[in-house]
Amino acid sequence: MQYRFVPNVQQGKASAVREILKLTQGKSMISLAGGLPNEALFPMEAVRSAADRALSGDPQALQYGITEGYVPLREKLCERMAERKNIHVGLENIMLTTGSQQAIDLLARVYLEPNDVVLVENPTYLACLHVLRFRDVHIVPVQSDEHGMIPEDLENKIKQYAPKMVYVVPTFSNPTGNVWSVERRLALLNACRAHEILILEDDPYGELRFGDQDGQAQDAANPQDPFPTIFSLDQHPDDSVVVYTSTFSKTVAPALRTGWAIADKRVIQMMTRMKQSVDIHSSMLDQQILYELLNATDFSLDQHISEIRTEYESRMLLMKSLLEGDDWRETSWTTPKGGMFFWVELPDGLDADALLRVSVMKGVAFVPGSDFYAAEAKRNRMRLNFTHSSREQITKGMHILAESIGEFVARS
Amino acid sequence: MQYRFVPNVQQGKASAVREILKLTQGKSMISLAGGLPNEALFPMEAVRSAADRALSGDPQALQYGITEGYVPLREKLCERMAERKNIHVGLENIMLTTGSQQAIDLLARVYLEPNDVVLVENPTYLACLHVLRFRDVHIVPVQSDEHGMIPEDLENKIKQYAPKMVYVVPTFSNPTGNVWSVERRLALLNACRAHEILILEDDPYGELRFGDQDGQAQDAANPQDPFPTIFSLDQHPDDSVVVYTSTFSKTVAPALRTGWAIADKRVIQMMTRMKQSVDIHSSMLDQQILYELLNATDFSLDQHISEIRTEYESRMLLMKSLLEGDDWRETSWTTPKGGMFFWVELPDGLDADALLRVSVMKGVAFVPGSDFYAAEAKRNRMRLNFTHSSREQITKGMHILAESIGEFVARS
Repeated sequence: MQYRFVPNVQQGKASAVREILKLTQGKSMISLAGGLPNEALFPMEAVRSAADRALSGDPQALQYGITEGYVPLREKLCERMAERKNIHVGLENIMLTTGSQQAIDLLARVYLEPNDVVLVENPTYLACLHVLRFRDVHIVPVQSDEHGMIPEDLENKIKQYAPKMVYVVPTFSNPTGNVWSVERRLALLNACRAHEILILEDDPYGELRFGDQDGQAQDAANPQDPFPTIFSLDQHPDDSVVVYTSTFSKTVAPALRTGWAIADKRVIQMMTRMKQSVDIHSSMLDQQILYELLNATDFSLDQHISEIRTEYESRMLLMKSLLEGDDWRETSWTTPKGGMFFWVELPDGLDADALLRVSVMKGVAFVPGSDFYAAEAKRNRMRLNFTHSSREQITKGMHILAESIGEFVARS
Repeated sequence: MQYRFVPNVQQGKASAVREILKLTQGKSMISLAGGLPNEALFPMEAVRSAADRALSGDPQALQYGITEGYVPLREKLCERMAERKNIHVGLENIMLTTGSQQAIDLLARVYLEPNDVVLVENPTYLACLHVLRFRDVHIVPVQSDEHGMIPEDLENKIKQYAPKMVYVVPTFSNPTGNVWSVERRLALLNACRAHEILILEDDPYGELRFGDQDGQAQDAANPQDPFPTIFSLDQHPDDSVVVYTSTFSKTVAPALRTGWAIADKRVIQMMTRMKQSVDIHSSMLDQQILYELLNATDFSLDQHISEIRTEYESRMLLMKSLLEGDDWRETSWTTPKGGMFFWVELPDGLDADALLRVSVMKGVAFVPGSDFYAAEAKRNRMRLNFTHSSREQITKGMHILAESIGEFVARS
């Protein structure tokens, strides 16, 4: 049998992270690669009793559900988005997806056609690049610094390419950990509104903020929220230029695969129509478990997130102290204000892909930066995750990485 | 904001079943419409204790998993497919999906390009037609009778259209409930192998067989299996012309959204690459619950399926006895050997869509046949589900339908 696959699927290279995970299978490997939350922090007992409650009532719990997702959880999310993100929408503006990854894919399928142009940060989330490549669109990177896309280049790219969509991770971006300033958020919003360009605001890490342990800064009552969502700045829930997406994967647990998309109801209707054909609906049991968890008397998601933040910040500070060591003096990086990653610039000419091959042999994995660029990859960047490995692993792994970098520098 | 959706998404009409469900929302309605299993038969207690076991161990249970799906469940499915379907494959030949619906969509995305031709039964499963329409392929129906596609027309269509794929539901087909004869299965297989056309064999209902309560007929030890899977007839697991898909939705519960695809490992690799970008993986908790359920000491899936069969057969016989009544004498139908549906031919000139509008006003819903045709719909067909409603509802609903039909016939 001669199979005839779609060319851009057959030719697409597998994700670097995935290939790295394969390299590490069955080996004792310190992985600073994935974007994995720390499983020691998963609220196992609370999820277990939530599951028990979800499965103790009407057997309707295991029946087919509606494509948009479990209504009580969507209602709960509307409340939570209003309280914490200043996003005020109704049930018709929100749908549940299999992680926020599926929200990206569904939107791409209903909104993008081959040869459409999509603007992205430079660098950006690699799995969004994969979605866009499968859609055969032109991906155009916009010059970006630690405050977001640079408005002048954004305007130039809009004039030059007439893009249909812009994809951004404005808060604790993947891979750089950057946070967009309010000015840059407004500049993007205004430019896109003027030119009717859809913004996909991907916010998986927004709740993982450091140095803000009371968790109240994002409250609607506080007009000084330093990182307002672009959706909330738009204040056009019924005619929004923004599609907002987030997930429980980083705050509760990835295995439950529950993300959500918030948008104008026409966008949600189109995405729902597509999802109906894609998988009918996502796991209804997971959605009911999350609802029970949010309603639990013995569990507070806000308290849980606060604990995660404290723990992740402490690991971030450990990695920062190691990066400040003499071993790493030829690298540069900025301290992340939240999220899961350090983005490290290696000495000129040091190829992070080559460094990875050497360091994997020594038992340490990371993600080389090249995969995060839509075009003209910078080869001397690396992404380091500080949330998943233990303190001992982080310390040991960083020493091995520094040693490998030292060998490369000495050789060149 | 002027949204610019992809035209074939914006223009696509919503599923008739979905629209009917909307009509029935909030009303006391007898629905013979959906393909819903009976929730009274869901193994709630067994699922609840399986969930408890899945959540009692290593917190790794809630971490990201691999895209192909939970390895122990895939291993278990390989055993089960060998025992019950004479399908002998390894881990590299099987992946888990969000229901078998997602397997259809993933295969369409890796294998079909716009303007490719796909052959389907006439009529066929409407949600597969939706997937194919979103891929912008040409859908060509092949003349079909109660034994499957008619070989002469199949050969003609192959010559005329050079199709890339054929989609079939050979065992207890949706909507007709038909079972393909072994001769027709072999004729399809041989034609497709000769012309290198991929067969997508969709088998959601295969285990819901009537008049076979010991459940052993599909055992590999029994060479007389009257309905062998086309995949098993191919006997080319490593170079198969067939992609086989099935699901736990009809045997355990739909909310767990777990289906699987079995194919040559290159096909599984491509579908996995696409799925990585689509949603990373399906619910890992659902997959672990199903694994725990299959391994439970206090639950036997085979025994459970046997109970479902008995119950569904008895409801089917009730509906059959009603259809044999004088009220329905101007209709024709065949007795299903399994599955969930009667496919009823109404008197010439009676439009089932018009009948639906009338019967919904009287409190009964069904699915008119027109949506199941890729082209030139027959308007005088209806699909009746006998698994979801109670006996009383079935009896009452069928009387109301007969009354409505009588009014139409009297008027014409």
